[in-house]
Amino acid sequence: MMQVNEIEWSEAEKEVAKAAFDTAYQREIKALIDEVRKQSSAIVEIDDIWRLHDFLSARRHNIDGKYDYEYSGLIFIFASLVKEGWLHLNELDGLNTNKLTKIAAIARI
Amino acid sequence: MMQVNEIEWSEAEKEVAKAAFDTAYQREIKALIDEVRKQSSAIVEIDDIWRLHDFLSARRHNIDGKYDYEYSGLIFIFASLVKEGWLHLNELDGLNTNKLTKIAAIARI
Repeated sequence: MMQVNEIEWSEAEKEVAKAAFDTAYQREIKALIDEVRKQSSAIVEIDDIWRLHDFLSARRHNIDGKYDYEYSGLIFIFASLVKEGWLHLNELDGLNTNKLTKIAAIARI
Repeated sequence: MMQVNEIEWSEAEKEVAKAAFDTAYQREIKALIDEVRKQSSAIVEIDDIWRLHDFLSARRHNIDGKYDYEYSGLIFIFASLVKEGWLHLNELDGLNTNKLTKIAAIARI
């Protein structure tokens, strides 16, 4: 098993990580706002509203669970964000090769 | 305690009840759709979306719980609908005086 919990983060890496984390969050939130506006502009009947509610419940659960800025989980968070398309690997430039390799590997799973 | 569970409903009363029930439901759903459209047209930031989600969760819980067409609970349902303004007492004309008196009394609680 890869040891990802005991990784040290330099101050420079922490800055890169925080910026990438915030960038991904802003992108995902913006996409969510756009999607909600689109869905709600198409509301005609009550089922459309319950569908919107189900959609929001799922997105909230996912977003609340994912954006937890703890260094112990950051490798996995970045891997998820890369896999889902909210972050490009090259936006993590500045992390050391060891971290980047792990993030890329987990993102491919 | 008022005995509201053992009330008999004539066929004519059932027709009045069903029509009133459907009318109230359509009114409440229409108001909900209007409100969701209004709230969603004002979405600017993510907190607006989570607020919309909270609102929908509460409304769905309330509506799912309230619109249960069982004769044993209909007196209480109509009392709630009158109290909340989704139904006027005179839209229940055709129910016998005993039922109307109970509905009006509970609606005032």
